[in-house]
This record gives sequence, C-alpha cells and structure tokens, in this order.
Amino acid sequence: MEVAEKSESLIVIHNAVIVTMNPQLDVFRHGGIAVEGDTIKAIGQSDDILSQFSHFPHSQFIDLHGQFILPGLINTHVHTSQQLGRGIADDVDLVTWLHQRIWPYESNMTPHDSYISTLLCGIELIHSGVTCFAEAGGQHVPEMARAVELLGLRACLTESIMDTGEGLPASWAIRTTDHCIQSQKELYNKYNNTADGRIRIWFGIRQIMNSTDRLLLETRDAAKEFKTGIHMHVAEIDYENHVVKDTRKVDYGTVTYLEKMKLLQSNLLAAHTVWVNEKEIQMLSEARTKVSHCPASAMRMLGFAPIKEMLDAKVCVSLGTDGAPSNNRMSIVDEMYLASLINKGREVYSKGTTDPTALPAETVLQMATTNGAKSVLWDNEIGSLEVGKKADMIVVNPLSWTMVPFHDCISSLVYSMRSENVISVMCNGRWIMKDQKILNVDEEGVISMARSASTELLKRASIHIPSRMNFV
Amino acid sequence: MEVAEKSESLIVIHNAVIVTMNPQLDVFRHGGIAVEGDTIKAIGQSDDILSQFSHFPHSQFIDLHGQFILPGLINTHVHTSQQLGRGIADDVDLVTWLHQRIWPYESNMTPHDSYISTLLCGIELIHSGVTCFAEAGGQHVPEMARAVELLGLRACLTESIMDTGEGLPASWAIRTTDHCIQSQKELYNKYNNTADGRIRIWFGIRQIMNSTDRLLLETRDAAKEFKTGIHMHVAEIDYENHVVKDTRKVDYGTVTYLEKMKLLQSNLLAAHTVWVNEKEIQMLSEARTKVSHCPASAMRMLGFAPIKEMLDAKVCVSLGTDGAPSNNRMSIVDEMYLASLINKGREVYSKGTTDPTALPAETVLQMATTNGAKSVLWDNEIGSLEVGKKADMIVVNPLSWTMVPFHDCISSLVYSMRSENVISVMCNGRWIMKDQKILNVDEEGVISMARSASTELLKRASIHIPSRMNFV
Repeated sequence: MEVAEKSESLIVIHNAVIVTMNPQLDVFRHGGIAVEGDTIKAIGQSDDILSQFSHFPHSQFIDLHGQFILPGLINTHVHTSQQLGRGIADDVDLVTWLHQRIWPYESNMTPHDSYISTLLCGIELIHSGVTCFAEAGGQHVPEMARAVELLGLRACLTESIMDTGEGLPASWAIRTTDHCIQSQKELYNKYNNTADGRIRIWFGIRQIMNSTDRLLLETRDAAKEFKTGIHMHVAEIDYENHVVKDTRKVDYGTVTYLEKMKLLQSNLLAAHTVWVNEKEIQMLSEARTKVSHCPASAMRMLGFAPIKEMLDAKVCVSLGTDGAPSNNRMSIVDEMYLASLINKGREVYSKGTTDPTALPAETVLQMATTNGAKSVLWDNEIGSLEVGKKADMIVVNPLSWTMVPFHDCISSLVYSMRSENVISVMCNGRWIMKDQKILNVDEEGVISMARSASTELLKRASIHIPSRMNFV
Repeated sequence: MEVAEKSESLIVIHNAVIVTMNPQLDVFRHGGIAVEGDTIKAIGQSDDILSQFSHFPHSQFIDLHGQFILPGLINTHVHTSQQLGRGIADDVDLVTWLHQRIWPYESNMTPHDSYISTLLCGIELIHSGVTCFAEAGGQHVPEMARAVELLGLRACLTESIMDTGEGLPASWAIRTTDHCIQSQKELYNKYNNTADGRIRIWFGIRQIMNSTDRLLLETRDAAKEFKTGIHMHVAEIDYENHVVKDTRKVDYGTVTYLEKMKLLQSNLLAAHTVWVNEKEIQMLSEARTKVSHCPASAMRMLGFAPIKEMLDAKVCVSLGTDGAPSNNRMSIVDEMYLASLINKGREVYSKGTTDPTALPAETVLQMATTNGAKSVLWDNEIGSLEVGKKADMIVVNPLSWTMVPFHDCISSLVYSMRSENVISVMCNGRWIMKDQKILNVDEEGVISMARSASTELLKRASIHIPSRMNFV
C-alpha cells in the first residue's frame, strides 16, 4: 500500500517562478518541482524537471504558466482556540481584555468549540498561505488535533498551561502543577507524531506570572525528556518585568529569570519578547532561543520589540499572528507587510528618522519560512524547497491588480501580496487548497457552525460587547 | 432624456445592514436605501423602503441578504501616476528613493503612461472600496481625467507642481512659477466639474523645498479665486523643518511657515504632517486645515504623526495610501487596520505602554468616510449615506473566513475586513464594480498594458532594480 501510493502520486509542477529559500537563496525563473508522496524528489529548471519525469507512469503534470511557488509560510504563534473570539476585545485596555473577555471566553469553551475554532482558524491560515503553525497554548488539544488532521495542516500543538495567578476562572484555579505536567505528557503520548507525522505536541507555559517555579523547572525537564519544544509568552509588557524583578529576585526581567532557571534553551519558542534589554538579547542569542514576532498584536497591546537588534545579534526571529482577539487578521501575508513597515518606523526613536532599509523584504521572507521552520524545530524537513524535504508549498498568482507591476519580485511578495494572491496550498505532498477552494472541510459549513457556536459561547461566558454606534 | 433617465433609474436596495455615518451614527440592522439617478432618495428600515417604492415603475430591487452597505471610502492622498512604479524603490534610503528612482520615473512618463497608471490604480482603489480620491500631485492631468471619467470614480485631480529645487530632472527644472500657475488654471477651466461632476481640479504644491514664496502665494490666491483646494506634502521629514527654519526665518517648521504665509486655511489638504509640534497642531486646528494621514508610508519613510493629538485638538484627519512606491498596497481597507494599530502602538513612547483604546474603530471609520469628505471639500455631497447626498456606497460581504464571527460589527469592518470582502461599489448612482468585477474597464487588458508600459518606462528612465536573491 505504502509503495503503491508512493509510485502513483508523482506530481510534476512546471513553468513556475520558484522561490526556494534554500541556503543559496536560489530563485528559478522558469522552474519545476517534482513531488513524490510527501517529499520533494527534484527541483530545478522547468525543462530539466519535465524531461527527467516525462516518462514516469502515473505522473500528474501541472503547468503554472509563470505563477510563483514559495515554501509554505509558517505562523509561529497563533491561538487557534481564540478564533471564535474575534471582535470580543477590540479597543479595550489590557485588564478588561484579559479578565472580562479572554479568560471568561476561554474558560467557557467546550471541546466542540475548540474543534470549530481550530477549523475556522485553519481555514484562514490556509487561505493566507500557511502550511505549518505553532499553537500558542489553547483549550482541548485533542479537538485541535482532530481539526488539524482533517484540515491537512502541519502543527505543533500546545495546551494552555497555568498553575498559579490572581483572578483565574474557577475551573482553571484548581489545576495543580502535577496535573499540568501529567496532562501534557499524556497528550504527547497520544498525539505526537500523528496525522502522518504532521502533528507534534509541545509543552506550554502561558506566561511567567501564571507559573510557579516548579512548573517552569518540570516543564523544562519534561520537554528535554520528550525531545520537544516549549512555547511561552515572554516579556509581553513592561509590568511583567517589574513583577519578575520584585518577586523573583533578578536585576531585570523575564528573559533574565528564564536564563537563571536554565529554560533559555534552543527548544524554547519565546512569543512577543518585546521588553528585553541589550543583555537579554545577547542571552537569547547565546541560548539559541527562538523568538516569535507578532507585529500587529505588539502594536496594539504590547509595544515595539527590538527586532532589528535581535536579528543583528543572530537571534532566530520568526513571525506570528497571535490570536483573533489581539489582531483580528490571522494572516502571515499581512504580518510580513507589517513586520517590514513597523520595524522601519521603529528606528525613528533610536535614530531620529525611520530607516527604510531596515528589515528588507528578503529578511522578512526568511522570517516567515526558514526562521519559522527553525523556530518550530522542524527545519530539517520544512521551511525551504529542497530535495528530500517535505512538500509544503504555496502557489501565488502575481498577475492581479494587487501586485502588478512586479519590478522587484521578492519585495512584491512581502509588500504587495495579499491573501487574494494565494491560489493553492500543498502540505505534506497533498493539496489542501486548490484554486482558492479549501479541499478537506466544507468552508461554508464551518463558518455557519462558528457563528452559532461563538454566539452561544459568549452567552455562556456572560460577555457583552457594547455598541459603538446607534443601531436602529 | 435627463428626465426619462431619472425616472427609469430607481434602484432599491433592501435587507442590508446599513452603516450610514450620518451625524447620529445610525446603523440600520435591517435597512433599505433608494437611489434615483445619482442621488440617495430615501434611507431607512428595509420594510419601510420596500413599501414606499414597491409600486414605482422601472424600479430595480436588490436583496442584499444581510450584507453590509457603507459609504464609499475616501482616499485623500494617492499618487495615481506612481502605480506603474510599484516595487521600484523598496528598502532604499530616502535620497536614493527620490533622486534615483521617483524623479527619473515621473519625469520620463508619457501622457499614455499616466493614463494606464491611473487606470491600474483606479482598479485597485475600487476593489478596496474607494469611490473618491484626492490625487497627491501627478503627471499629465488630462490623461488622469480621461481614466477617472472612464472608471466612474470621483476625484480631486492635482498636477505635480515644483518651481525650484536642487537636482530636479531637466524637463522639470525649466518650469517657471508663471507656467506652473497658468497650467493649473487652464486645467481647472478645462476639467473642473466634468464627468457628470465627478472630477474637480485642485491646485498643487509638491512640497515646500520645491516651492518659491511666489508659488506659495500665487497658489493660495488662485485657489481662493477658483474656490478650490490646495493639496501639499507638509512636514514629511525632520530635515524639511530644519531647512525651512534655516532658510525661511521661522522658529519651527513648515506648518509655522505656512501659517505665516496665510496658506494654512480650510482649503489646504496637508499630506502626512508628521513633524509638527503642539503649537502647530493648534495652528492646524484653528485654521481648519485638513490632514491626510498615510500610516503605511509614514512608518516606512517618515515617522509617527501625532494623530491622536491632532484628533484631540479637533483637526480633521483623514486617510490616504500615498503612492505605490511608498507603500505598495493602495488599499484604504488596509490603511484603516494600520491606522488603528500604529496609533495604539505609538502611545508607548509618550506613556510607556501602548494604548489599545487609542483611535477606536468608530473613529477610524469616520476618518475614512466623513473626515475624508471634509478633507476633499465635498462633505455636502459625500461621506455619509443621507437623503439628498450622492449615491457613493460599497457593499461588503462579512460572511467569509476573513470576518466571521463578527461580535463587534464596527470593529470588524476596521480590523477584520479585507479587500476580499468588498463585493460591489457604486459611485454617483452607478455601479462601477459588481460581484468583484470592474464594470467600466477591462481589468485584464489594463494589467497587460501596465506590465509592458512600466517595463518600457523603467528602461527609458534608466532605472535598474538590483536582485535580492540568486535568480537562475
């Protein structure tokens, strides 16, 4: 069965502009790529690929007529459980956001809500060119996994983990450290490496103010034992650093404390990491800790992360969207555009003028692909289009009003491309979107379920959103 | 003919959520709107509108099945002539941007290039929900006017005007002040109030470093004589203020000098206006001068304009995209999202934390509609959906993966909506896009013409764009 499927499923895509993101940053102007099973078998000049595979039986040939192929984009920080909460916390202060909206919302989710939320989020991720994502820590991992398996995406799934904290909803406040660790080990044993290897299970730490020292240490050791990653919100707001400094006896903030606790390692994916000083940037670099930069969410809620400084210090920085109540658009395509703009603008404060050369397009594209792959500890298999890697890729049509003319092909992908331009998406050798149609789930059905489930959830959680205008 | 057409062209749109943006900010949950000729004849509850017009002969009834209607969005600063230059100046410093890319590009444009560029830009504007725009100052106004008339848009057209400046291309350096003024008067006489009243002609001043005092004063007086507006780039970079201070003997920058020269009046549309101090914000407010905020372009090239401070001081601030080589996306839909994010983030520098409550969604929507209309001196006819105003409106489908769920209808329009959601656009009572198909021009034909015209133009202007990757 395995052998038969392999020999039958050769897909030869030709006549494409292929942005490989390989170490040489090769771009084939007239490129071709052959996919066998879940793997890239060959990549090169279109004519060479065509002649190499023209006599293979059961091959499927696809002429892209000059459209682009890119590695699937990687979203390294997204709350799939929060998708049903889009619009529940816009334009409110952080305390309201957390205590009156997000915690009541998340703590009232049923497993079925998580399933629908992940499906809806996954549909948006796929339309926006994402093939792999890192869940930021959410509710009901088994239901997330069910949705990811169905959608055909690749994901590192993480449970939302807290074992302490003021004002936690009752159902969360009773969770012990042991329960937190045990639950994640069970999830790992049950779901890691499932869905044809597309699903991996990570350990989670929501954030330092909701973690005892024992949770930090046991998470560190468990992740080491299971050879997996840890996903944690780090140094999100200045207040967090002050609390850490006051309660945990270090001279600066969360990053300094994590270094002290030996959590700052290469398997830690630190989300946001906005409030860090020079010394901490150096710590992140030396520990090879990964940083997920979420430009939209940072602008709205957190502040300007020193991304240029981190990249200069060789920290591996990737891109994330954060969750729908923090950003609203779960689109890495938009985050690429934002990352470049915001980090050019940020320079005005250190230099007196913006720096239009900061975070150039090729750097941003690396953040969304190769750095993304390193961040999710999967760069041996994804992030670039190379022989032997998994076939995770997207087809982009640049010949539309959004992108024409494209004098600078790479910058056009970063600055001009919109989700409209993402035509087809392949993950693990299988198309999961073709001609903008999601293949594995009924998009309209999910939208309809999401609307009713989210309305019910808000009722259950007693969340009321005030009107902004005079509705009559 | 006129009478017959009026009585035949009654369009009754019903079963829609109508965001009117009228002074009471009424939103009809189940609304209807009747359009006769170019004018809104009635607006209200869907059932009332239906029964009021059900017996009218020759009425066309359109059931929107709960889709949204908004006033057409207004882009108050866009360089339609620069659309063919998308991607020619990404990630380069400001001097390279101006002297090696933009000036060679613009000074080598033929009238036909301007025509195609305006068509291509117009297609993007329409897809992004814009019905009216203010040209920032471009080449070959007659060809712009021809394109605008054909597209069916509404516009304030302005010639790019400079009568002094270092390093200007030869064809521009020979223009005298008299020629600049005379040319614009002729354009006004020929094109103002053409295309069924959709085209107005404004006076232009590119920026203060390219203007003699005589040009400033004569522009001020000519605009007064012709009862029209002046469009000018103001206080874009800190350097500009320093030059003005040094050469024009004022104690701060461009705004202070314009006030001294009595140009700071209610018919001045000041674009960007990034580098202004508190006193100048007060001057802008007292003079009722309009400000066009271009978030993307400002982040990339200019800096953070004190938009919250201006709005607090009752300055009328609207939204612009700037030109394609400064931003790449000519989408007011994206600028709304950016305006809110960037101005929340900007607060981190004055307050130490971002302010997620700054520039709430309803304010941003006003900037893109009613403030836009005031900025282009057309608020007696456009900017909101009210009886007697021109029928400029857009239909938005919120029932897609980009926007569902929409718990907060107004914030969803600002934060979640993408150009994908803009389904149909009406300007001056006529559909110019229906079901995402541009009606008055052949979109694919324009794209094809734009690709070849822009390639030729870059050759003529000797503009070479370096490769960012290894193209093989």
